[in-house]
Order: sequence, then C-alpha cells, then structure tokens
Amino acid sequence: MAQKGSMEEFLAMAVDAAKNAGQIIRSGFYETKNVEHKGLVDLVTETDKACEDLIFNFLKLHYPDHKFIGEETTAAYGATELTDEPTWIVDPLDGTTNFVHGFPFVCVSIGLTIGRIPIVGVVYNPIMDELFTAIRGKGAFLNAKPIKVSSQSELLKSLLATEAGTKRDKSTLDASTNRINSLLFKVRSLRMSGSCALNLCGVACGRLDLFYEIGFGGPWDIAAGAVIVTEAGGVVFDPSGKDIDITSQRIAASNPLLKDAFVKALQD
Amino acid sequence: MAQKGSMEEFLAMAVDAAKNAGQIIRSGFYETKNVEHKGLVDLVTETDKACEDLIFNFLKLHYPDHKFIGEETTAAYGATELTDEPTWIVDPLDGTTNFVHGFPFVCVSIGLTIGRIPIVGVVYNPIMDELFTAIRGKGAFLNAKPIKVSSQSELLKSLLATEAGTKRDKSTLDASTNRINSLLFKVRSLRMSGSCALNLCGVACGRLDLFYEIGFGGPWDIAAGAVIVTEAGGVVFDPSGKDIDITSQRIAASNPLLKDAFVKALQD
Repeated sequence: MAQKGSMEEFLAMAVDAAKNAGQIIRSGFYETKNVEHKGLVDLVTETDKACEDLIFNFLKLHYPDHKFIGEETTAAYGATELTDEPTWIVDPLDGTTNFVHGFPFVCVSIGLTIGRIPIVGVVYNPIMDELFTAIRGKGAFLNAKPIKVSSQSELLKSLLATEAGTKRDKSTLDASTNRINSLLFKVRSLRMSGSCALNLCGVACGRLDLFYEIGFGGPWDIAAGAVIVTEAGGVVFDPSGKDIDITSQRIAASNPLLKDAFVKALQD
Repeated sequence: MAQKGSMEEFLAMAVDAAKNAGQIIRSGFYETKNVEHKGLVDLVTETDKACEDLIFNFLKLHYPDHKFIGEETTAAYGATELTDEPTWIVDPLDGTTNFVHGFPFVCVSIGLTIGRIPIVGVVYNPIMDELFTAIRGKGAFLNAKPIKVSSQSELLKSLLATEAGTKRDKSTLDASTNRINSLLFKVRSLRMSGSCALNLCGVACGRLDLFYEIGFGGPWDIAAGAVIVTEAGGVVFDPSGKDIDITSQRIAASNPLLKDAFVKALQD
C-alpha cells in the first residue's frame, strides 16, 4: 500500500477512478448501436457526466483539500482557474465522437498538477484495455510495462498525428488543411484517431513520432498525457517551439531528436 | 465441416490462412521496437513475404486450379490480370507503415473473386483480434457476430475516413488536401487509420459512416473488404458514383442512405 499523500498513492487512486469510469464507458460504447439517433446525445451526456461524477466524488473523498477541473464542470460553470495548489484535471471521456460511432479510441484522462506542473498522469482506454501511467521522475508505463518514445531522428520517416478539430469556420479549417498539406511533404504519413490524450500516449510509447493539435477542448485533454510523454523520454511544447502553457489549447509532442525539425516544419 | 468446394469451405480455409498469417504479424509487430532502424525494412519485407507464402501455399494446396493475385507477387512479377476464374486476391499485411511504427491497425486481407466479383472476404487484425468475414448473400460478421453499416442519413453527422496515401508529388497531394478541406465542411469529423481494408470493415460495422481512397496499392486492399461492406448492408462504388472497378485503385463506401450526398460532396 502506497504511503498516504505520496505520489504513488495519488497514482493508485487515479488508476482506481479511471478503471471504474472505464466500466461505464465500456457499457455505453457497446450500447450506442442500440440507441435511436435522438437518444444518442443523451447517452453521451449521461456517460460523460456519470464518469466525471464518479471520478470527482472518489477523489474528493480522499483529497478534500485538492482542487478539481473537469470538462463537464467547466462547461457547466465556466472556466476554472488553474492555481499552484494540487489540482486534478479530468477528461472523463476523451474521444466523444469516437464513443458515439463505436470507433475504439476513447479514454479517461486524469492528471494531477502541483505548482501548475503535471505530476501524475493516467490515461485509460477501456475498449482496448490499455492503461498508460506516469509519475514525474519515475518513468511511464503501459499496462505496467515501461514505455519510451521512438528513436526516430528523420522527419521524413516519422508518423505524424493530428486532428481535424471541431471548428468549421473557413479561416480555421483552411489554416488547418494548409498546415497538413505542408507537413505531408515532410513526414511519412498522417494518422487521425480522434483522441488528443491517446495521441499523446501514442507518442509516449513510440507508435507515433509526432503529434500536434491547435484548438482542442482544454487542459483536461493534455494534463495526464503531458507527464506520460515526458516520463517516456519525450518532449511536449507549444507548436511554436516555446514552452507549453497547458491552458492554451495548443500542444506538440515528439521525441527530443525530432523537436527542432518538427517546430521548423510547423512554422513553414 | 463445410462441403468440399462450397463457399463455406472457401471461407473456412481463408480464415485458417489469415489466422496463421496473423501469428507471424503479431510476433513481428511486437519485435519492431527491438530492431535497429536499418533492420526494420528487412523485418517488414520478411513478414510480408512470409505471410504471403504461407497463405498462397496453404490455399494452392487445397485449390490448385484457382488463380492467385498478391501484393508481394505482383510487386515481384508485374501486374497480374484478373480473370473470370476463381481468384484469391491477398494483401498479406495491410497497414505496413502502422506495422513499422507499432500502430495497432494492421491486418491480413484475403478475398476470393469469381467472375471478377468478390464472393468471399476475410480481414483479420491480429493485434486487436478482430476477424471480419463475409460470403456473398450470407451476411457479414465480426468475430462471428452479425454486423451492419450505420443508419446515419445526414452527412453532417457522419464520420469520414480516408488516407494521406503514399504519393508525394505536389499535384496529387494538393488535390488530396483540397478534397479533405472541402469535405470537412460537410461531415462531422475525419479519421485516418492507415489501413484501407480496415477502413472498409469500419464502414461495415458502423464505426465509420464514409470512406474513400484514391490511389491505394491495388485490388488486394479492397477485394475482401468490398464483400464485407456489401454483406453488412453497405455500398461500395467509384468515388464518381459509378460502379466500382476493383482494379482501378479508386474506392468509396458508405451505407445506402448516404451514398448520393457523399458522391456529390466528393465531386464539389
């Protein structure tokens, strides 16, 4: 049993919460096909809400003094400021569109920041039963086995992930596809899986070499993934190459060998 | 035991071959991380070749009079003409880039055409252990459970899949990203998983609503998937809306409700 108030205990609690929420997601995932279209929105909202309630109630019980930021809560009560205090940042269901369609890239993402720095991260895909975990300074793991980023050093041999996002105004979409066009000349290929947190974990375990996204939901999409990438030997940064601000809705991730070339390619 | 020479026997043999090849793919998949970069190309080539040899030797033993078309064989001996005779069309490893990177969308694809029409289809993803099967006129299945295409009728709520392809000349790539840009205004979101055969199976089981690809490898990418989509209640067609020619390297797939709107969107 991990020591009370230790990082190991925080991680164990987050894993418990993620696995329990994962059960709710799993049952909803296989139910979507049996729900009328008009009932689907309710199923998504209910699953999202049930998972966030479960995770927050569980963690609040153990850590009543900690702060909490969640996608659902923020949507309901407006933006919540990130402070230096221990703060759990939770996306109860990342990959909502995938959930609706039954595409197997969905996950729970639970991060803990202290002094605004991600310290503990848990990302759990209940459909593929993949649990990514990390504690700052203590390595990253997939189903308890150590993981590390790829050793690829050539952009042209790299597998890139990004997302089409949800914004559909012409200038955002044009900028987005122009960037993709420009990058496709410089990398091997492109993947879009529909989950920001799982894209980060994909970089962490070397399935992907490069990931960037601009304009995703909020810090709950990346708080856990950021520490998992870093502990797997990778780097997370703003697509401009500057330090990341986890509240900025901009992220890039890669192994350290590719960072400079990736930043240059993103700017071209 | 299925009757000698029956469609059920053809399917059972193809499933056997796909599962055996899947074992080779699975061991290679988890080995890629331990191979030096310079050894990776050999591992891919060896896996591809070993799988095709296994599948062709197995099927030729049982069906010495049948014809065979495979990606590896065609690459080595030039194009093989598709005739009216029973012809096994095989992609021993679809999703080669995913295989190299350890991204879990890889599969074996085995289709049988008679009179140039896909009659039997098997697509097996050995990493996610998903086996898609179909016999013309007898339904489509995922791990022995019946599957059907989505009932989505609105393009704007549809999940689209396509691929970045492998061609990197400017006119092809510009046309490709312009098409993506135009489509993103009309659909919910976009996925790129890196396997043509699995994209077709995604449409068949309703995870994806729409898929198109122009300029993929050859008929081995779609021969099995085409019958799986059709038997799941879907339609496969040329992106122009015309009948599909499985040797043309152009395909689109959807449920019947979306076809007209999808073709129009592809032409805009």
